[in-house]
Amino acid sequence: MSTSRVAWHAAWVLPIASPPVRNGAVVVEGDRIAWVGASARAEADVHEHLGDVLLLPGLVNAHTHLELTGLRGFLEGLPFRDWLRALTLARRDVLSTDDLLDAARLGVAEGLRAGITTYADCSASGVPVRALVESGARGRVYLETFGPDVAQVSASIAQLRDAVQRWRDAASPLVDVGVSPHAPYTVSESLYAAVADYARAERLPIATHVAESAAETAFVRDGAGPFADGLRARGIAVRATQQSPIALLERTGLLGPTTLCIHAIQLDEHDIARLAAADARVVHCPISNAKLGQGIAPVLALQRAGVAVGLGSDSVVSNDAMDLVQEARQAVLLQSIAAATPDALSAHEALTMATAGGAEALGLLPGLGTLTVGAPADLAAFRLDAPEVIPLFDPAVALVHVLGAGRRAALTMVQGRVLVRDGAVLGADADLPRRVSAAAERVSAWWATVEGA
Amino acid sequence: MSTSRVAWHAAWVLPIASPPVRNGAVVVEGDRIAWVGASARAEADVHEHLGDVLLLPGLVNAHTHLELTGLRGFLEGLPFRDWLRALTLARRDVLSTDDLLDAARLGVAEGLRAGITTYADCSASGVPVRALVESGARGRVYLETFGPDVAQVSASIAQLRDAVQRWRDAASPLVDVGVSPHAPYTVSESLYAAVADYARAERLPIATHVAESAAETAFVRDGAGPFADGLRARGIAVRATQQSPIALLERTGLLGPTTLCIHAIQLDEHDIARLAAADARVVHCPISNAKLGQGIAPVLALQRAGVAVGLGSDSVVSNDAMDLVQEARQAVLLQSIAAATPDALSAHEALTMATAGGAEALGLLPGLGTLTVGAPADLAAFRLDAPEVIPLFDPAVALVHVLGAGRRAALTMVQGRVLVRDGAVLGADADLPRRVSAAAERVSAWWATVEGA
Repeated sequence: MSTSRVAWHAAWVLPIASPPVRNGAVVVEGDRIAWVGASARAEADVHEHLGDVLLLPGLVNAHTHLELTGLRGFLEGLPFRDWLRALTLARRDVLSTDDLLDAARLGVAEGLRAGITTYADCSASGVPVRALVESGARGRVYLETFGPDVAQVSASIAQLRDAVQRWRDAASPLVDVGVSPHAPYTVSESLYAAVADYARAERLPIATHVAESAAETAFVRDGAGPFADGLRARGIAVRATQQSPIALLERTGLLGPTTLCIHAIQLDEHDIARLAAADARVVHCPISNAKLGQGIAPVLALQRAGVAVGLGSDSVVSNDAMDLVQEARQAVLLQSIAAATPDALSAHEALTMATAGGAEALGLLPGLGTLTVGAPADLAAFRLDAPEVIPLFDPAVALVHVLGAGRRAALTMVQGRVLVRDGAVLGADADLPRRVSAAAERVSAWWATVEGA
Repeated sequence: MSTSRVAWHAAWVLPIASPPVRNGAVVVEGDRIAWVGASARAEADVHEHLGDVLLLPGLVNAHTHLELTGLRGFLEGLPFRDWLRALTLARRDVLSTDDLLDAARLGVAEGLRAGITTYADCSASGVPVRALVESGARGRVYLETFGPDVAQVSASIAQLRDAVQRWRDAASPLVDVGVSPHAPYTVSESLYAAVADYARAERLPIATHVAESAAETAFVRDGAGPFADGLRARGIAVRATQQSPIALLERTGLLGPTTLCIHAIQLDEHDIARLAAADARVVHCPISNAKLGQGIAPVLALQRAGVAVGLGSDSVVSNDAMDLVQEARQAVLLQSIAAATPDALSAHEALTMATAGGAEALGLLPGLGTLTVGAPADLAAFRLDAPEVIPLFDPAVALVHVLGAGRRAALTMVQGRVLVRDGAVLGADADLPRRVSAAAERVSAWWATVEGA
């Protein structure tokens, strides 16, 4: 029996790779896109009429921490280093592996409802692999490694090898694993170099948080500031490198076409040139960067230099919602402020970053993040029939700036499989929110004792 | 017969003037708040159980242009001066008074659905007075005057007097009028001074756009830049004042406790001192300011100097949605970037700006914008039972950062009267969206001829 062709009709189709189509359709055959065009000309065995929606490629969240979903709204307003420490302690001392798995499941469900079909996750536990495979979503889990002390390198690499072996076995055709040396202030230069060698040998993609804060730059360049003080207090040697964080990565051999640089805010022109020369990729997390007071990444300069830039939500601890449409809007607002020009990034360009840009930054299948023939059938649709959308001059503007945050997808499809209809995840675990709330209550109780101490 | 007491019960009550109450209630008697406290202790004739909602004071939108609602999403990305010119032409040449009235009605309906109970509007036509009175919302319409040429002063003032007389007659106990000399680049110093005299004599509140752009500062200080070029091309004399826009306002006698300064981005420490000394008020419009590339207003410094700051959406032409919760979030994000510190403004502080701050900036009734005994019964409630809210550590954070934009109010009440239930405006005009869309089509067609010309 041949695979049936299903035409998905929509008031607006936004292929990303080409201009919007009014009254358009996307024909899906099996797990691929077979045709895109005017609704009236769509040939298919089955016709699905989505109505007054905007149909576009599934959104690509190029940076998240799914296992932290249960800590949403926790630690509001703490200074960055304290925030990171409290988070690490809560994850290590209070939350069980089951808690982290449930949190990751809740995070994927939230993302699917928001039209996100691909998740690039950084995880200390690895459990997001399971949550993603269960859900039917596409994703990659970068397994995190830490070790600011050079004495820890072999232990860290051994642990990382174990984690990679374990979670590779749990992966699937849609979900793979990578490695993530966490950040320059938690990973020694020697560990960065060792991870670079290991990842190259095993053909593993790499992600690292880098150039996120002034404190990080002070740590790397001058061996000073709160991160340096914290490590010295633990008896760990810290030295001034007289270099930028990106230069440090370059020297360790970490930068390359499979390296995803998360945040990349504190960059000078030399750093941008280094990233471009190495064909390294960047993920921009505008809401997290703003809320934590880190600044505005030079996205336009990176794009001009030819660096692929995707969009990420970061964890809901810093954000506090997983919503790529909201990130797209924030990217427009922040780049317009930085450039002192109206709409320095158009709504269409921001949606491109949230789809094709992310797919390119992650080095995923050609065509992913666009509606083009042969691309994987990853789709998202959002209803346009809210009165707030009136009048509608441009569907990309309507989605990014008018509908804005918190809209649930009318349809989310991954690899030809429908995962969300009318804002609801199909087959959702009804008890999941209760379990995540219960774990959060335990974290609250624990935190009250820590704060009191 | 005595007025009945109605207790509105909610999972969370956020009085703004005092800490959040879990399982709380607000008792309304007639048009006033009679009691606020724990649900179990509420005494009333009627009990209304809103369920899992956050109940807070109605939101105060301290700056909008309701009559421009029909131009939403029009003119994306144009340079500021071209944008303003296209807008002015569309309003003058294409849209009829009926079109503007329908647009204002659609804007008020959108705001009511978003929990906005008070609207401070700037209008060239005056029709928002009618839209507000019809709707039952609270508001003020600042009637705009323009006139960059000193020869226009008496004609502008005469027109303004006529408009004030006409629209004062159409006003109501909940809706009053003020005057708005538009901005330093469209209003001569003489006209500013004449408006100041007139407003003082007639006890009319004043609003003006000021210190919004670098182009405006260059115009006022140096008599240079695009605004100066534009006026000179029209044969209007322009001179360098060597002063800041705020200093110019001070010199014309316009600054005072009934003066609302809209935007107030380009301020130095002397300007902030001038605003504080005059007891002038500010309305901050973070999304408009970002999207137009104007910058970040020094909100924290203004507040430290004792200046009352409210939040505004500006028109949906620059924004593109009227949603004060979204503005509150953006205020947090932008102030955190400007201060380079996490959550430089807390979610609770941002909601305070969106309620009590706006009421204070507008000089409205004492208690408005808070849930306190004796205050007008202006309420808004938002559902918290979305899975995205899990876990909930702080209800203000949940509303501002998690629920975010686009949420419809479960309840909107003005002066004791329910205007919205379950996200729907009671008695809404079902044909209104169609009429506004039709007017937008006419604008699109006109614009195609202008762009082609």
